[in-house]
Amino acid sequence: MSDILDALHETLERRKAADPEKSYVAQLHRKGINQILKKVGEECAETIVAAKDAAVTGSTRDLVNETADLWFHTLVMLSHLGVSHRDVLAELERRFDLSGLAEKASRKS
Amino acid sequence: MSDILDALHETLERRKAADPEKSYVAQLHRKGINQILKKVGEECAETIVAAKDAAVTGSTRDLVNETADLWFHTLVMLSHLGVSHRDVLAELERRFDLSGLAEKASRKS
Amino acid sequence: MSDILDALHETLERRKAADPEKSYVAQLHRKGINQILKKVGEECAETIVAAKDAAVTGSTRDLVNETADLWFHTLVMLSHLGVSHRDVLAELERRFDLSGLAEKASRKS
Amino acid sequence: MSDILDALHETLERRKAADPEKSYVAQLHRKGINQILKKVGEECAETIVAAKDAAVTGSTRDLVNETADLWFHTLVMLSHLGVSHRDVLAELERRFDLSGLAEKASRKS
Repeated sequence: MSDILDALHETLERRKAADPEKSYVAQLHRKGINQILKKVGEECAETIVAAKDAAVTGSTRDLVNETADLWFHTLVMLSHLGVSHRDVLAELERRFDLSGLAEKASRKS
Repeated sequence: MSDILDALHETLERRKAADPEKSYVAQLHRKGINQILKKVGEECAETIVAAKDAAVTGSTRDLVNETADLWFHTLVMLSHLGVSHRDVLAELERRFDLSGLAEKASRKS
Repeated sequence: MSDILDALHETLERRKAADPEKSYVAQLHRKGINQILKKVGEECAETIVAAKDAAVTGSTRDLVNETADLWFHTLVMLSHLGVSHRDVLAELERRFDLSGLAEKASRKS
Repeated sequence: MSDILDALHETLERRKAADPEKSYVAQLHRKGINQILKKVGEECAETIVAAKDAAVTGSTRDLVNETADLWFHTLVMLSHLGVSHRDVLAELERRFDLSGLAEKASRKS
């Protein structure tokens, strides 16, 4: 599985410079950070709604789709601000060498 | 790099059954889906705020931390509802074989 | 000022039954609660972004517009679920007879 | 009913200058705009969750409470940035003299 985020990262970087008429990613970059963050918030709300539906119905298809949308738009956000997803993964790796509640403290410090 | 996500997934699954007094992950599961989703929304807001700050200051440390928090809590959400992060990554992989604006259409269909 | 929310409430109730081709409010009701909540989340993200911009630039026009959007969509949400804005205002009134930090406790109990 | 918003506005302005040890409102102002916006996002997520629960159970008590929390924290946000709730209400009043879908266009222009 390890290559999907890296491959996606490369694709997103390539599309950053694409024609906004042909690439949704290029469109987002042209619209700028406020529009990207609006999409992040919108997809977060849709993820929460899909999770509530999944908890009731047991059907998780929408939840998978909405979480993919949310992760995708956070990756575009990172790319727009010049941050690599690898920095985020490295931060998660660092935290989880810590055990138990220490992880909570580290998130908040 | 997403070996890290696999390792994190295993850690999260293990902590699901841990003592809630000692594990923040176990605490979240005990509190239930509404509390987990509250955290997802809170971390999303903090990510948006950190992205706005990064756009002004150029400093991206908070943005990395908050995005890690957001991804972490979405992973706990998936785990709580019995969904694997691999399903989300597979969905992203599927979409990005599509080119250009087709990816947008697929997200919305 | 006291009449604006009441007048808006009446307008929203009237438009609930309007032709969805002609009324955005009727459209939202027809689309259902998930779409209404998606809009609430989207407008919340836009409000957060506008507040960050206002804190930097001192210009508050966008913040006023986005907060109006957020309040408007929460009113449609309440209307869709058969709740009156008066119940929300009554709850706020009740809380603020309490002083100091007691208000926080009441919100969380 | 929005005499209540005016009264609340006055209370919030008064507490802005109160002792942060004794007033939650003063605490929020001392913590600053990022913490206030984090609370706005958190309460928005809780409102969405409560709305989904209300749609299933028919019980609206949590939804009233969470919407009150959301409106309250948006009022603190406005106060922190020197904006009056009256400007937001005036914007809503202005829009709703417009009919049908024109209101949507006006929100987006």
